[in-house]
Parts: sequence; structure tokens; C-alpha cells
Amino acid sequence: MERTYINEVQKEIGSTVKVQGFIENLRNSKYMAFIVLKDITGKLQITVEKEDHPELVDTIDKLTPDSVITVTGKVMENDYVKMGGIEMIPETIEIESIADALPIVRKEIAATKKKKAVERSSIDQRIDYRWIDLRTDENQLMFKAQSCFVNAMRQFLLERSFIEIHTPKLIAAASESGSEVFKVDYFDRNAYLAQSPQFYKQMAMAAGFERIFETGPVFRAEKSYTNKHSTEFSGFDLEFSYITSYKDVMKMEEELLTAGLKAVKEQYGEQIKELFGLEVVVPTTPFPVVKLADLYKGLEEEFGYKVDESEKGDLTTEAERLSYDFFKQKLLVVLFAFRIFHYSTCFLCLCVYYITGFTKLLPAFFF
Amino acid sequence: MERTYINEVQKEIGSTVKVQGFIENLRNSKYMAFIVLKDITGKLQITVEKEDHPELVDTIDKLTPDSVITVTGKVMENDYVKMGGIEMIPETIEIESIADALPIVRKEIAATKKKKAVERSSIDQRIDYRWIDLRTDENQLMFKAQSCFVNAMRQFLLERSFIEIHTPKLIAAASESGSEVFKVDYFDRNAYLAQSPQFYKQMAMAAGFERIFETGPVFRAEKSYTNKHSTEFSGFDLEFSYITSYKDVMKMEEELLTAGLKAVKEQYGEQIKELFGLEVVVPTTPFPVVKLADLYKGLEEEFGYKVDESEKGDLTTEAERLSYDFFKQKLLVVLFAFRIFHYSTCFLCLCVYYITGFTKLLPAFFF
Repeated sequence: MERTYINEVQKEIGSTVKVQGFIENLRNSKYMAFIVLKDITGKLQITVEKEDHPELVDTIDKLTPDSVITVTGKVMENDYVKMGGIEMIPETIEIESIADALPIVRKEIAATKKKKAVERSSIDQRIDYRWIDLRTDENQLMFKAQSCFVNAMRQFLLERSFIEIHTPKLIAAASESGSEVFKVDYFDRNAYLAQSPQFYKQMAMAAGFERIFETGPVFRAEKSYTNKHSTEFSGFDLEFSYITSYKDVMKMEEELLTAGLKAVKEQYGEQIKELFGLEVVVPTTPFPVVKLADLYKGLEEEFGYKVDESEKGDLTTEAERLSYDFFKQKLLVVLFAFRIFHYSTCFLCLCVYYITGFTKLLPAFFF
Repeated sequence: MERTYINEVQKEIGSTVKVQGFIENLRNSKYMAFIVLKDITGKLQITVEKEDHPELVDTIDKLTPDSVITVTGKVMENDYVKMGGIEMIPETIEIESIADALPIVRKEIAATKKKKAVERSSIDQRIDYRWIDLRTDENQLMFKAQSCFVNAMRQFLLERSFIEIHTPKLIAAASESGSEVFKVDYFDRNAYLAQSPQFYKQMAMAAGFERIFETGPVFRAEKSYTNKHSTEFSGFDLEFSYITSYKDVMKMEEELLTAGLKAVKEQYGEQIKELFGLEVVVPTTPFPVVKLADLYKGLEEEFGYKVDESEKGDLTTEAERLSYDFFKQKLLVVLFAFRIFHYSTCFLCLCVYYITGFTKLLPAFFF
């Protein structure tokens, strides 16, 4: 039998289907067993009346949370069931993999009358068992939204005659001044990790490619005391020729971001709201623009933040941090505008982090 | 005035439009000047009767091949003109950038009665001036086809619930046994460059992501005496759970490749035929399959090629090379099948090299 995704089970009321996934929850009592099965598309309650299915009891007794099973069974309506008002009455349960007791607590367990609350494991502990921590709806949604976001931006550019390129990451010399490079032992000599595809993007322009983009890793040998973890990140870079002004670049990026966020909102907006309590904001274009000089002026007035004239050509890390507070209401655009102002498109994805208030999406860029 | 792409100029007969691009060819005689202007979409002849446009003569005299200009002018039908039966009568010509004499000869220039043939520059010379060499139709087409191919495969997977991930390339330990790693100075310790996203792909499966893919750089510290240049290449990796047999993987990859090649044929098939004399072959599924054991048997019978039993679990470099000759007719599938046989999907894009006979596409993966 072909496997049915759980979000398709709803359509199969009265039929027998096969589902596969992780056991998210398990209640195994004397007469009844309830299994909440989770696959990448959703959750399904599997209900076993043991008297009716004595042949399943041995298998059910072996099950543990996070075990992976294959179940065939009949899909039934049941208004008392939360998950879509349906449940599955299983005919067979096959164990694919039995999970040991989980080494981390993914989510805080609230106190009951009988039991104390159980604290969520620390981020360090969870990172040590990342593959287990990633099984939560929230974490999976981040990756789905990221995939959707990047793809929507790619489609936006491809529709506008951009060519996607894949440039080398091993290079013979540092590719951008001002940031540190990682050195690689390359046979009998040294190579360096690309700090950006900048050179290649510009070569592509000189080669008459006109419009190109790349999504790929970027490496900076900088200790990350900034609010960007920049030793390695995924950059979404674009470059295009025959502009008449930097405003052409701003316009393109405004539309690009808007297209990306629109797709995320359409496809995952409801789930993001449900799981993170966040509204995905699709900005309207044109974005308001703040000049860097005005920002520095504002930061000085508001926070007494002063910076040497020599540094005012770019956004300092501290100014970036302060501007978050300063523009909280107008935030949608501000940091985006800064980045455009110094013509950098490298940080596009990272900027989106600030722009959307989607703080929990960021880690998705660092698997 | 908004710029018009050259492939859109045909629709503008009788109108005045603005075009921008590189001067591919220039004939500047006493009374007439002919400029072939090339942008990323096509070529346009610009015809100047000097008597009618004395104000343009000074500018035209400055022009050199590969200079970049902006031209506004009227689009006219002219059956004598090869490029689409149209030409532009310019009103203004603006120089964006004047090119020096080119340091390489991109294409052999045939002998005429007056002049000897000029040889094409060697690959080494051309690589030294890669951005100039890339301006040819052939080179640009490789990148367009590659962009199209990768995108079509991505769309194929996204439509089938795959999630695109971006995994780290800097890792703490070698990710695959049997191949050499590049060592990186990572602050006060060492890191290594990922030889494949294998670990992360598998972690994603253990995390319940079910179906994922990644396009990104892969690094192998192997001296490239093989027919794959593997120190750095772009991998197209996928991984999916809940298969019932390796045949599920073969089927997915057959359909994936077919979808990619179909898109390339549709979008660029004619141009590929015109510029490379190659027919893009879209294979039909299911692909014929050859067992590795049968290949080794065949290679021994045909070429006397013997290999130790211990090596027969994988395809040796020499066997890979020989099999090209051996299966020339059946080639469409063979190497693909091998790769599936040892469950590696990393080489997917490289395999396409053999599969399509599209030999000139390969360099496109190495900018």
C-alpha cells in the first residue's frame, strides 16, 4: 500500500490507509491505547481498543515516544478528537525503530497535581541532540519557511532574467578587504575561504551576464561578538548591470523581500501565528528610507551614542543594535535601508531576521 | 527611457527604444558604420549612415570591440539584416565603457584572401581572462542552461514535499571516510571542509524532515587525476525517508533528471543545437539498469580490464572511463545506474555530464 501523508488522511474517511511517522505522544492504559503519530505534514490520533485488537497489544507495549512506526488502519470521524476530528483504528502496527528514553526535554512540561513541572533542557543540551530537538513542530516549521522563502526569492529573480551561478569557495587570495579570512591547507600551498562571492559577481557583470544571483555559504574569520554569527552563513547575493541609480537596487530588493515574505505568509502564515504567536508582515513598497547620517544623529540624541566620523560610512555593530530599539515601530525597513546604502546585498537574509521580527527563523540558517 | 532587451526589440518596429550591451562586432567605414550590439538576450545590428548623423561620428570613431554602449534609436525592418530582419537607426550613442584591445582570441578567425587565420587562444590564456572569454554566446549559454537545469530539479523536488536545507561546510571532523579532507585554521584549533552534506542529510532524516535536498559546494582534498575535478564542486544532494527499496531512489532520480533535462531542452534546446551541434536528450523512464558486476564482466571481456575483487563494490575511475566507450550507445543510463547502486546521489550533476553527452556543460559547474 502507498503511504498517505497525514495531511491527506482527512480525505480518506472510511478508507484504509498507511501512515508513517514518529510517535509524538503515547497513552497506554489497560483497555485503551492512544498514539499521536506525527509526520512532516501533521498529526493523527491512532486509537486502539485492546479488546478488539489483542494481536496489537504486544507491539503497543514496546512503543516509546519518538519511536517510528508504520500503521495501516481505517480512518474514522470522531468529533471528540482534536486533530482534525478524525482518528485511525489500526489494523497493523509495524515498528520501524524503537527510541530510547529521550536525553533532552524539548518543551517545558507544566506541573500537574501529582507531578512537578519539568524544565526545558538548556540550549546547549538541546544542541548536543540537535536531531532530536529538530523534531518539534516549531523547528521543522522554521526550515519549511526558510525553504519557501529562499525559493520564492529565487523564482522572483529567475522571472526577471537573473541567472543563478555557483562560485568557488576556495580562493587564492582574500576576496574582501576589512574582514578576516580562514586559511586552508591546499596541498602544498594555502588557499582561503571566500568571504563573499563579490569578485565572481563582478566578473559575471564584466562577462555580460547582466543579472546573476547565488545562494551559498560565506565564510568570515570573525569572532562573533556581534549580533550576526558570521563565521559561516548562507548568503543570498545578487548583482545586476545597467542600473541608473542605487535606487534601482533598492527597488529590486524591496520587491524581492516582499515576494519572499508574501510566499511565507501565504504558505505558512497561519502556522507561524499558531506556533510562534507572530504575524508575518508583508511590507508594502516603496519602503521608507532613513539616511545613515540621520540615524547616527537620532542615536546620539536618543541614547547619547557617539561614533567617530571615520566610522559613519557604515553601520557599526552597536549602532545596528541600538537602532533596533530606536526604530522599533518603523523597524520594518530601517536596517534594510542601511544595508542598501552601502550597496551590500550579502546580508539580505540576515537582515530579514530583523525585518520580520521573525527572530526564531534565524537559527534555521545554521543547521 | 526604460531599457529594452534585444530579444524584445523585434516587437518594437517603428518605435524608438533604448538598448544596452557589448559591441560584438564593428565595421566603421567612410560612409557607413555597422555595430553588432549584444546583450544577454540576443544581438542587434545598429546601422549608421554617417551623412545623416554627423553628430555620432566622433563617438563611433572611439568605439572598440567589447566596449559597452547605450543606444537609443528607431527599430526598422530590413530583410537584408541577418539578426531577425531588423536594425536600429540610432539617435544617440552613449559610451559606458571603452574596451582596450582584447588580450585573447576567443574564437578562431578564419583566413581570408588578405589575412592569415588567427588561432584561438589556449585554454590557459582564456582562463587568465575568464571574464572576457565568458562573453561568448556559447559560454553564456552554459550558465543559462545550468541555471535552468538546477532550478527545474529544485522545483521538481519542492513539488514533492522536499525541504531545501543549507548545511555547514566548516565541520569539526571528516564527514566521510575514504576521501581526504581540507584542513582549515579555525581560530585556535582546526576545522575541516565538508566532503558532503551526508551527516546533515541523515540528521535531517532522524529529525523527521522526511525529504530534503541541498545544492552547494562540496570539498575533497583529492588530486584530480580522475575525470572528475573534485577538490571543489557543486553537489545536488537529496535524501528521503520511508522508502521500501533502493528502487524508490532510482525512480526519484530518474524522474528528477528527466525533469531537469526536459526543462533545458524546452528552454535552450534550439540554442544548444545551434551553438554546440548537440541534441539535448530527454531520457524516458524507467532507465535501463546495468549491474556493477555485469559491467566489470563486460569490461574484462572487451578491454581485458581486471580489477581486484575488493574494488568491485564501487566504480573505479578507470572503469568509469572505460565504460564510456563500452556503453557509448546505451550511455544514457549506465553511469547513472552505477551511482545509484552505491546509494550516492552526490555526483548527480556530474553524472549528467556523461548522461547527456553535454560535455561542454560541465565547466559551467566551475565558474
